[in-house]
Amino acid sequence: MTGSQFADAQIAGSRTRPELSETEQHTAYLLSLGDDALVYAQRLGSWIAHAPQIEEDMALGNVGLDLLGQARSLLTRAGEVEGEGRDEDALAMLRDEREFRNVHLVEQPRGDFGQEMARMLWFSAYQHELWSRLTDSADETLAGIAQKAIKEVDYHRDHATQWVLRLGDGTEESHARMQAGLVAVHPYVAELGEDYPAARWAADAGIGVLPSTLADAVNAYVGEVLERATLSMPDEPRWHARGGRDGIHSESMGYLLAEMQHIARSHPGATW
Amino acid sequence: MTGSQFADAQIAGSRTRPELSETEQHTAYLLSLGDDALVYAQRLGSWIAHAPQIEEDMALGNVGLDLLGQARSLLTRAGEVEGEGRDEDALAMLRDEREFRNVHLVEQPRGDFGQEMARMLWFSAYQHELWSRLTDSADETLAGIAQKAIKEVDYHRDHATQWVLRLGDGTEESHARMQAGLVAVHPYVAELGEDYPAARWAADAGIGVLPSTLADAVNAYVGEVLERATLSMPDEPRWHARGGRDGIHSESMGYLLAEMQHIARSHPGATW
Repeated sequence: MTGSQFADAQIAGSRTRPELSETEQHTAYLLSLGDDALVYAQRLGSWIAHAPQIEEDMALGNVGLDLLGQARSLLTRAGEVEGEGRDEDALAMLRDEREFRNVHLVEQPRGDFGQEMARMLWFSAYQHELWSRLTDSADETLAGIAQKAIKEVDYHRDHATQWVLRLGDGTEESHARMQAGLVAVHPYVAELGEDYPAARWAADAGIGVLPSTLADAVNAYVGEVLERATLSMPDEPRWHARGGRDGIHSESMGYLLAEMQHIARSHPGATW
Repeated sequence: MTGSQFADAQIAGSRTRPELSETEQHTAYLLSLGDDALVYAQRLGSWIAHAPQIEEDMALGNVGLDLLGQARSLLTRAGEVEGEGRDEDALAMLRDEREFRNVHLVEQPRGDFGQEMARMLWFSAYQHELWSRLTDSADETLAGIAQKAIKEVDYHRDHATQWVLRLGDGTEESHARMQAGLVAVHPYVAELGEDYPAARWAADAGIGVLPSTLADAVNAYVGEVLERATLSMPDEPRWHARGGRDGIHSESMGYLLAEMQHIARSHPGATW
């Protein structure tokens, strides 16, 4: 898949950082998966009341709720592994921005609908390969989460695929906007395939997978969809996002967390 | 249930208005039910990313999606009955504020979580009685919608009930805030039980029910929950909302529609 950004990701190194214990690596790996799902769920939630059709309102809402469900399971498991008594809510609501390990793709504000479908296509293609591989994880809880998630993500990927085909192969305007959406998300695609320390540890331990090993399958899938949709894979961008796995985020992440955490933080320990 | 606002609603008259045809009355009745669900779904969607716990994010999102599903079915049926070729999206996205027939309760902006649970308790108790009765509707499509909706609303009502009990019978602060939430929504409760011309027509035709005939059951349910929760039914408010069924709405309805309709209206007839 020439021109794809996902494939070159394995060459991107990660910052040097203090050595982490096995428990810390394992926790960090689960958080990286959970935060991707959690943050993207928030972004998809903002489509309720904003999609062009009620049916689509519901579809995006359902995808968001699936991801929220994945996030809950992953953060709960991360809290168990960490062993410091933090539950899903403590991990979602009381961590600071620098402690979130999601990629930049999912934290970007909502663009137009075509751009959302471009993001969903890449993300669900990535998650599809990820969960397929993790059904074999040595962390049995994670394997169980993967087993359930794979069915959900099948639907997400199919949903995005149908829209990309419909818009790409639609009117001149819908084609142009879908292509523009692909270009807009492209600088955020490579980071999905970037290996990072916790993933390296998890892959070695038989618990996780190296993101770079998913690249061929993800690129093949997206490439084929774009071809059928008469769209082209955008050129390699001059700049691409990185650092999310290390807690380095874009400006919009701060606003997203402020919104998400506001109520929980203003009433610490309260039942609401 | 002394002090309840729902019970006195049958005395509230409706404005005089030009005589409507049977088709227009039937359509108007379906729209009043559909708009309640549609507008409340939008308000519940705004809780995604704002609830105090991820589990509650998901619960409110799911209730919103159930209501969106009810709205779709009801608006589709309204379009069929109207016979002018308008589908659910045309009815949701291209009507003006004055054509929306929902009650004021559902269009009010989100308050705090206790206030949302107060709103959900009243609305789901009302919908519970409504759908139970409409399973016998002479409009067989409406009867089918009711059959499906009753199961959903059972869950909504139970969810709101559990929270009202937990907050009312919880800490001093949660009790005070839950009570304040009940007081805040109380001026909007009576309108749910107000009879209006399309409902009178629909009840006469065996298609619908008179809202005032649901009042005893709704008040009994809510009254019992409040008693168990050690909360009190608020005093009768000096003012109460009315006019929603005639298309007279509060200021916030305009913003809600602007948000909901923006994308569809800026690309009329487009696939997105």
